[in-house]
Amino acid sequence: MRNIKLTVEYDGTSYSGWQRQPGLPTVQGELEKALLRISGHSVDLMAAGRTDAGVHALGQVCNFRITTRLTPPEIARIANQLLPGDIRVVKAIGAPDAFHATYHAASKIYRYVIRTASEKSVFDRLYHHSLKRARPLDLAAMRRAALRLKGTHDFRSFQGQTIYKRDPVRTILGVKVVRKGPEVHLEFHGKSFLYQMVRILAGTLIYVGLGKIKPDDIPVILAAKDRRKAGPTLPPGGLFLVKVFYPKDAGKSRRVSKIEEGIE
Amino acid sequence: MRNIKLTVEYDGTSYSGWQRQPGLPTVQGELEKALLRISGHSVDLMAAGRTDAGVHALGQVCNFRITTRLTPPEIARIANQLLPGDIRVVKAIGAPDAFHATYHAASKIYRYVIRTASEKSVFDRLYHHSLKRARPLDLAAMRRAALRLKGTHDFRSFQGQTIYKRDPVRTILGVKVVRKGPEVHLEFHGKSFLYQMVRILAGTLIYVGLGKIKPDDIPVILAAKDRRKAGPTLPPGGLFLVKVFYPKDAGKSRRVSKIEEGIE
Repeated sequence: MRNIKLTVEYDGTSYSGWQRQPGLPTVQGELEKALLRISGHSVDLMAAGRTDAGVHALGQVCNFRITTRLTPPEIARIANQLLPGDIRVVKAIGAPDAFHATYHAASKIYRYVIRTASEKSVFDRLYHHSLKRARPLDLAAMRRAALRLKGTHDFRSFQGQTIYKRDPVRTILGVKVVRKGPEVHLEFHGKSFLYQMVRILAGTLIYVGLGKIKPDDIPVILAAKDRRKAGPTLPPGGLFLVKVFYPKDAGKSRRVSKIEEGIE
Repeated sequence: MRNIKLTVEYDGTSYSGWQRQPGLPTVQGELEKALLRISGHSVDLMAAGRTDAGVHALGQVCNFRITTRLTPPEIARIANQLLPGDIRVVKAIGAPDAFHATYHAASKIYRYVIRTASEKSVFDRLYHHSLKRARPLDLAAMRRAALRLKGTHDFRSFQGQTIYKRDPVRTILGVKVVRKGPEVHLEFHGKSFLYQMVRILAGTLIYVGLGKIKPDDIPVILAAKDRRKAGPTLPPGGLFLVKVFYPKDAGKSRRVSKIEEGIE
């Protein structure tokens, strides 16, 4: 079976998130259905980020093993003919045998898109979060707060309620606060993120932009390890998984690199 | 009862067009429901253009009579709280007693938005028409063809099948062919349009852009008065009602202007 790596774009509005769930429309479910129709055997997708219901992706990455003799570009083209219009394979390439889109992901960029109410339009209402009142955001304060989020911290204050217990220590490599025409884009580059972490980080930065939280409060919020100290969880429609980074040799000679790790 | 003039923006994707139809979701139906909730009495909307299923609007204009004492801006704000997210009142103003959004409309601008397949994205798939193959459009040829559509003609060759018999003579005031980033916008300014006329005009101009129809064929197609001679009817998702123009005194002293008309 060949190992194929896909880059996928989707409008998450109509889906109960990435992950396959019985009886619910999911992005993974739709992709697996299309690949099953192509190959005739059931296909198991591994993805870099299991995005929540309503969250979008510009560059989700996943991989799967398949028996078809079609070339990767042919798989992409045919899958796009079978997929609904809100899911699109952007790219398909052959991957090393051991490549795993989840485990080998080195880091990811998520973007949260904000508009103020005065710039509302019905046409992109699903792809950003509109602030209720038309108040200007203090981008300089948001950038000062963003700097204080960088680095390795216990992010328990920025984690949504979940039954899964995971290590709350995460590393944020960078946060950008960018004005793009009528929008403000918040870009979070991190190794990995906790449940709802990006939406809570975005809600906290907006509170900073509105003057409800000071940039200097960020270390205090982190130290509190208390979800109630951070800003609100913003709705999913403004969130995009933008890009996933992999080491150049991801999936190649896995055993050797394990040994190397042991030596270091 | 006061006469109120609304400017409305909508994403037509989920609606069976503008016009109220029993048991079907329509833009008129949603607006009338919201206005009924505000005023407590049933409200009858008159619109400039009865857009088809799936067609969008940036500047649809309609009017209605209502008893509420709310100011027009208050009506707009409250209606927007009651309306679904894909319909938005952009503006509400008091209109002269006899103002009628349908009969007084002097002209309208419709825009048809095209992309080539290579510039596809899942996020704006509902708001343009994607050409299947990534072929460049000859905009200069399209502009020469557009010039030949201008003026007053029998547009029977550009009319969709309909049971309604209307005068097929229409006046096109101007056609613009504009490149906008990855898109080509076709803008049709006309006094009024026949059923599906804009989508057939757009389909014909695309055929000109692809070299399937020559600009000089346009007078021949017009003269044929035969729908089969023109290009295809493009799908509704690429079409927008952009703007409606009214004479400055529309609805004011209607009787006097009728007498004046008689004198001329």
